[in-house]
Amino acid sequence: MADTKVYRASTTAPVNIAVVKYWGKRDAKLNLPTNSSLSVTLAQSDLRTLTTASCSASYTEGDSLLLNGEPSDVSGARTQACFRELRARRAALEAADPSLPKLSSLPLRIVSENNFPTAAGLASSAAGFAALVRAIANLYELPASPSELSLIARQGSGSACRSLFGGYVAWRMGENPDGSDSIADQVAEASHWPEMRALVLVASAAKKGVSSTSGMQQTVATSGLFAERISRVVPQHMEGMERAIRDRDFAAFAEITMRDSNSFHATCADTYPPIFYMNDVSRAAVRAVEQINAAAGRTVAAYTFDAGPNAVIYYLEQDTELVVGTFYHVLGGEVPGWKQAIISGLKPSLSLDEGVAALLKGGISRVIQTGVGEGPIRTEEHLVAEDGTPVKSA
Amino acid sequence: MADTKVYRASTTAPVNIAVVKYWGKRDAKLNLPTNSSLSVTLAQSDLRTLTTASCSASYTEGDSLLLNGEPSDVSGARTQACFRELRARRAALEAADPSLPKLSSLPLRIVSENNFPTAAGLASSAAGFAALVRAIANLYELPASPSELSLIARQGSGSACRSLFGGYVAWRMGENPDGSDSIADQVAEASHWPEMRALVLVASAAKKGVSSTSGMQQTVATSGLFAERISRVVPQHMEGMERAIRDRDFAAFAEITMRDSNSFHATCADTYPPIFYMNDVSRAAVRAVEQINAAAGRTVAAYTFDAGPNAVIYYLEQDTELVVGTFYHVLGGEVPGWKQAIISGLKPSLSLDEGVAALLKGGISRVIQTGVGEGPIRTEEHLVAEDGTPVKSA
Repeated sequence: MADTKVYRASTTAPVNIAVVKYWGKRDAKLNLPTNSSLSVTLAQSDLRTLTTASCSASYTEGDSLLLNGEPSDVSGARTQACFRELRARRAALEAADPSLPKLSSLPLRIVSENNFPTAAGLASSAAGFAALVRAIANLYELPASPSELSLIARQGSGSACRSLFGGYVAWRMGENPDGSDSIADQVAEASHWPEMRALVLVASAAKKGVSSTSGMQQTVATSGLFAERISRVVPQHMEGMERAIRDRDFAAFAEITMRDSNSFHATCADTYPPIFYMNDVSRAAVRAVEQINAAAGRTVAAYTFDAGPNAVIYYLEQDTELVVGTFYHVLGGEVPGWKQAIISGLKPSLSLDEGVAALLKGGISRVIQTGVGEGPIRTEEHLVAEDGTPVKSA
Repeated sequence: MADTKVYRASTTAPVNIAVVKYWGKRDAKLNLPTNSSLSVTLAQSDLRTLTTASCSASYTEGDSLLLNGEPSDVSGARTQACFRELRARRAALEAADPSLPKLSSLPLRIVSENNFPTAAGLASSAAGFAALVRAIANLYELPASPSELSLIARQGSGSACRSLFGGYVAWRMGENPDGSDSIADQVAEASHWPEMRALVLVASAAKKGVSSTSGMQQTVATSGLFAERISRVVPQHMEGMERAIRDRDFAAFAEITMRDSNSFHATCADTYPPIFYMNDVSRAAVRAVEQINAAAGRTVAAYTFDAGPNAVIYYLEQDTELVVGTFYHVLGGEVPGWKQAIISGLKPSLSLDEGVAALLKGGISRVIQTGVGEGPIRTEEHLVAEDGTPVKSA
């Protein structure tokens, strides 16, 4: 009779928010980018995906994926590419050591949960594909390094490759047509600059107009300014950002972060037809950061925006009162997401321009307080029971 | 006793709205641009400045300027440059013909009025300086051509040089350090393509954040994408736009107009700190034009935005129902500025996406219906009485 044993392994994976943005594919099939990018990995205590990968001959329905309790399609090219790459590596181990169980031929059951509301409008695909790849690699006991796994996760979702590391992470665009050198590496551990914090301002109407996948390809095809961004602007930003992180120079980190976000959204606006991700509330957050830095007399905060209206504001732990205090002062306690332990200690901080404050108060529906964090962490909390039944996380 | 005779001459001058934008000075003192630009002159029956230039030995207070009933400072470098250039040309005539009255040495009294509300937030400086220069040139009976006068008006306000012609007007950036070849010329008469219409959607909160003069210099100094716009994007747009006008090809005219507006605002967003002129209402106007063109199955409308949130929508007379009808349908009769003669004939036209319609209805405070028109027109309607007293226009 067939072995019905259920093999399983679980991991958590983090969200990352780029400070030098990925926007544009030179190869859509392999998810090869037009430029390198760099991100900060955010703490999993606040934002993480928990994923259990399991396989068993008893999974008669074939490969399956349960995402936040909902069955999710696995037939897509991106998911299939990840399965295929991981199975091939497992099959190579099995060929080399016949004593190993033939997991590569067993159906996969993946169960995944986010600890943050999708309402947050945060790109969860990065954490999702990073967790999926890391969990299957654990299940298959692959000796692969995070960089090697980043090469696989990249084919699931480009920015996912950066979520395989903690701290400060670069995705090198590479040159090879097969993408073999388009991988992520760690610029610095979280412990190198542990004071980095992020305040996410979630804009109410956070429904995305144009998907990033189609949006970035429209930009590549139609923006007259895009070529300049990838050939000249981004390389300068990458070099300057790696230096700023090495030197723990927040003023430089902040200026490049803000300039790169502006440059990215400028190429979106230069796309034909134009793509607008930022709205009047996003722009109010930009002005708020400018006013906070002006009032502080130094750079204490930096804004960045992904393919949506939410603002992510980076700052250092010692400037919490100036940055978080000011936004708490404006948004007030009714907006959910504040960490009371931090907020309770804050004196009412500097006040913002009335128009800016009104736009933020009317347009921000929740906040997330977090900071730089670690990469994927193996866990014994499984979302698949020993008998193979999916379970909810504790 | 001194001759107290009052010499006077009057003109009207039009507003122009660029379809290839002027943004950036290579010489701030001489108002020399970083790139050529091209505009459509709008009909003076809807938007015009009426200016009377007068001079008399009896003007004991020296040179003066009355703008819409308010005394206006003439000591600014830009106004002084115009006065100096015009007086020098008059002085040369007087030197060549001693029988001419010595007007060049008499104090100037300039009285000027716009027929459109400043609330419209339309750049009135272009019409203003064009009228000022044309009126004084008439007063001094200078033989100067409009192109020669454009060289003087340019020093008052860059885009003013394009308001010395009707129809379709190019401002050639030129090469000479002294600006002697940075002049306007007429690409085509209004009569070459008389069907061109413009609908201005005036956004309620039309107060300008950053003045164009300082804004464009910040862009030149800080935008990493700007160099690409002036070296590659604008030259292509100029060439394509002149061809589109020559061929009366509205689809090409419209695409270049929209792409150039997008490119201009993209370099504003790429400025550090970023400059935002368009707001959520402006972006709704962009989507509305896209929806109108999609519904029509061809390009019938083109949006363009200057340094503010107002949308200017170009279309052809035969498509009035599709374009004006749709906006009238959404904005309704309570928004002022509709031309009843045109509106009354229109059937309710295609309807826009609800979110877009709501933003427009809430954010557009008035409209202006106009079209391509003529250049400055000499008039006997004077804003200075024979005795030199300022008077209001009839």
